[in-house]
Parts: sequence; structure tokens; C-alpha cells
Amino acid sequence: MSRIRRTTFRIDFDIGARLGPGKAQLLEKIAEHGSIRSAGASFGMSYRRAWLLADEINRMFTEPSIATRHGGKSGGGAELTEFGKELLSRYRRMEEAMLKAAHDDLEWLSGHIEPAFQPLGQKEDG
Amino acid sequence: MSRIRRTTFRIDFDIGARLGPGKAQLLEKIAEHGSIRSAGASFGMSYRRAWLLADEINRMFTEPSIATRHGGKSGGGAELTEFGKELLSRYRRMEEAMLKAAHDDLEWLSGHIEPAFQPLGQKEDG
Repeated sequence: MSRIRRTTFRIDFDIGARLGPGKAQLLEKIAEHGSIRSAGASFGMSYRRAWLLADEINRMFTEPSIATRHGGKSGGGAELTEFGKELLSRYRRMEEAMLKAAHDDLEWLSGHIEPAFQPLGQKEDG
Repeated sequence: MSRIRRTTFRIDFDIGARLGPGKAQLLEKIAEHGSIRSAGASFGMSYRRAWLLADEINRMFTEPSIATRHGGKSGGGAELTEFGKELLSRYRRMEEAMLKAAHDDLEWLSGHIEPAFQPLGQKEDG
């Protein structure tokens, strides 16, 4: 499947919240970097946006996923709660299971991609 | 899974083309309505955008998915080629297989959604 750069999936909940690759990546990077600011910065996301996403993740489930610590010389930090770890691990497991389930069809798609394709300059969401 | 409104998945190819719910819906509606214009209009997409998406679908694979007919009183029409039918059918099959593969994790997510959640007004892509 060398012609596929990546596959992403997103879940829309009826409460108006969404879970997709952006939130999963933020959780992963918070676990890695120990702060919301550094996590966002590691993939080019502004602190404001990273904070808003983290806040939304914490409010959309019945338990918080990210615990923050304030004060001290380091200016506080953030880490995943047990719930947050489980959430991230389930999201990654779903991705893996989905790729496996779709493997043959993804191979077929890859085999029919036009190598000379020129995308239009504009954003296409389809 | 009553708390999940929908799940969507998207494939990014290394040639810069993408396949996701918008293109799949357009293909489905072209098969149903017999024209690109009516297909787009059926889900609120402008003719210009529907035409651009249809053109991109036709160029991104080694075979066209949509065949157009010009002329006549009706002003022409569009239909799916055999390749287009297979493409759509494989996309839908992948969706189904993925949902099945992720079923238990989606149930877990649904069970932990906060019913009192209030989304922010702004767009969040995460």
C-alpha cells in the first residue's frame, strides 16, 4: 500500500463533540512531553488551540483524560489520567483493527491510483 | 451506540488526492439522480464544487468513475462506470468492515460520553 500516505477516522457524537486524529495526536504528545504547550508545539499547533482541544477532550467524556499541575519553577505540566491512557490506547487499537479489516480494499485502491494525477490547488474535502 | 452520530474515514494518497465521505456521497447520488448537478443539489453542494469533485475522482484513478453524456433536451446526464460502481461498493464495504472491527471500542466510547457536554462555538478539527 505504498501509495497510501495515511488513513484517518473520526467519530461524531450526538452531543456535538468529535474524536479524530488531532485529539489523538494531542493526547499522545502530552504523554510524551508532559505539557500541553510542548505537546502542541511538537506538531505545530498553537498553545491556545492545544489548550482548547485539551479542554474539550476533558469535558466530552464522563472522566478527564488530561491532568494538569500548576505552580513551581517549571510552570506546571500535564499528563494523561488512567482514563486518558485507555482512551488513546482504544483509539489506536481501533485504527489498527480498521486498517486490517479494510486491507484488501485499500490494496485495490492503491493499485488503481493514477501516478500522473495533478491535484487542484484548492482544498477539497471529499 | 446511540450516542455516535456517525463515523467517517478518509484515505490520503501520496499523489495528493483524497477519498472520503464527500466523494463517496457524490458517487452515490450521481448513481441515484443521473446528473452531477442534481446529485450535488441533493445534499446542498454547489454545481461548481460537485463538478470539481467529480473531475478529481475521474482523474485520481487509472479509470474514470463517472461518465457524462452531453446534448439533448435534458442537457446531458451522468452515470457511474463499472469502475465507479466498484469503487463506491468497496468504499462502503470498508466502512462496514471498519465499524464491525471497532465495535467494542465504539461501545466503550459511547458509554463514557458526557451527556451535559457543551461544544464551543468554534470549529474544532480534532
